[in-house]
Amino acid sequence: MESGDLFILSAPSGAGKTTLIQRMFDQERADGARMVFSVSHTTRAPRMGEVDGRDYHFVDGDTFRELVAADGFLEWAEVHGNLYGTSRQAVEEQLEAGVDVMLDIDVQGAEQVLARRPDAVSIFVLPPSYQALRDRLTRRGLDDEATIERRLAVSLSEIECYEQYQYVIVNEDVDKASAALAAIVVEKRHRLVRMRDRVKSVLEAFDSKIPG
Amino acid sequence: MESGDLFILSAPSGAGKTTLIQRMFDQERADGARMVFSVSHTTRAPRMGEVDGRDYHFVDGDTFRELVAADGFLEWAEVHGNLYGTSRQAVEEQLEAGVDVMLDIDVQGAEQVLARRPDAVSIFVLPPSYQALRDRLTRRGLDDEATIERRLAVSLSEIECYEQYQYVIVNEDVDKASAALAAIVVEKRHRLVRMRDRVKSVLEAFDSKIPG
Repeated sequence: MESGDLFILSAPSGAGKTTLIQRMFDQERADGARMVFSVSHTTRAPRMGEVDGRDYHFVDGDTFRELVAADGFLEWAEVHGNLYGTSRQAVEEQLEAGVDVMLDIDVQGAEQVLARRPDAVSIFVLPPSYQALRDRLTRRGLDDEATIERRLAVSLSEIECYEQYQYVIVNEDVDKASAALAAIVVEKRHRLVRMRDRVKSVLEAFDSKIPG
Repeated sequence: MESGDLFILSAPSGAGKTTLIQRMFDQERADGARMVFSVSHTTRAPRMGEVDGRDYHFVDGDTFRELVAADGFLEWAEVHGNLYGTSRQAVEEQLEAGVDVMLDIDVQGAEQVLARRPDAVSIFVLPPSYQALRDRLTRRGLDDEATIERRLAVSLSEIECYEQYQYVIVNEDVDKASAALAAIVVEKRHRLVRMRDRVKSVLEAFDSKIPG
């Protein structure tokens, strides 16, 4: 069984990442292909409707810190006093089962993952312009002006890290950007190293038919 | 200007390569993307309707041999007493202009190109089964049984070389196989090294808008 690939997708707030991810999973389902999102561990309390194991693995602080001490996270961070992390074991079990795993993480998280898994495939989504970024952050209608300015500043500082990534997708046209993301995933699946089982089964059928 | 990528596509006779190539170029045209086929040099006489510079570069034996002596071919071969070759200069001019170049060549040609351009992206198309290969070779209706047997033997010996290639596409479903070929091409275009100009132009527009 060939291993799956580990993908890191990072995008500043307002780059339109959510739509890209949604489309990718719709396409994957249509193709019967195998990709999962990693489910993070967190110490924060479940919100209404959140299910343990589906939305997050909800753990207490001691459990989380033990995992940190045992290098059990590919990346982790504290956000507003809560701890969030990506379990190394959960990811590696999926990969070993031949399943692709997508991590939707920020620039700092990506850096941590790449230090532990230099073979991870890293993709950065860029908004097409400053105006598009600002428009997307404003259009949500959820945030006041100060929050938008703060998000914009964070986005800009993240954008400056694009050179850490192997791939860049400029999200100008959502169809093209989705196609680019899908291409990166599909390309990996056709590398010789991931096709050996398939090729072997084709060639076995050949051998039985070749006279002599 | 970032360089284009050089692609090598090989497939045994009967693997269904022609349809894949046709689809890829239709898609490329629809996307306004830039990929060309390399036009080979040959010493054979033009056939009815063939245009010099479009179908082949028609040259005499001395010119061809001078090019061979000057290492002017990425690959060349003699077939039925005629010489055929892929001009290194023509390919490299396109690549430097940022155009992707596709070489449709056999296993021996691919080996020669990879020796000179180890950065070439090599793709092997495999038929899904012995029966499918035989059916495709028979269905053309152009060849007698002895010719079909000979082609089949050549195809089988080519198939054994699949491990020389970076990518394998099993052409079981032509839609999926076309999508796989397109994915390999599109993936290359989103590597950081090929996105620098695009990213730079996006970021310049950012800089002019950022206060302070």
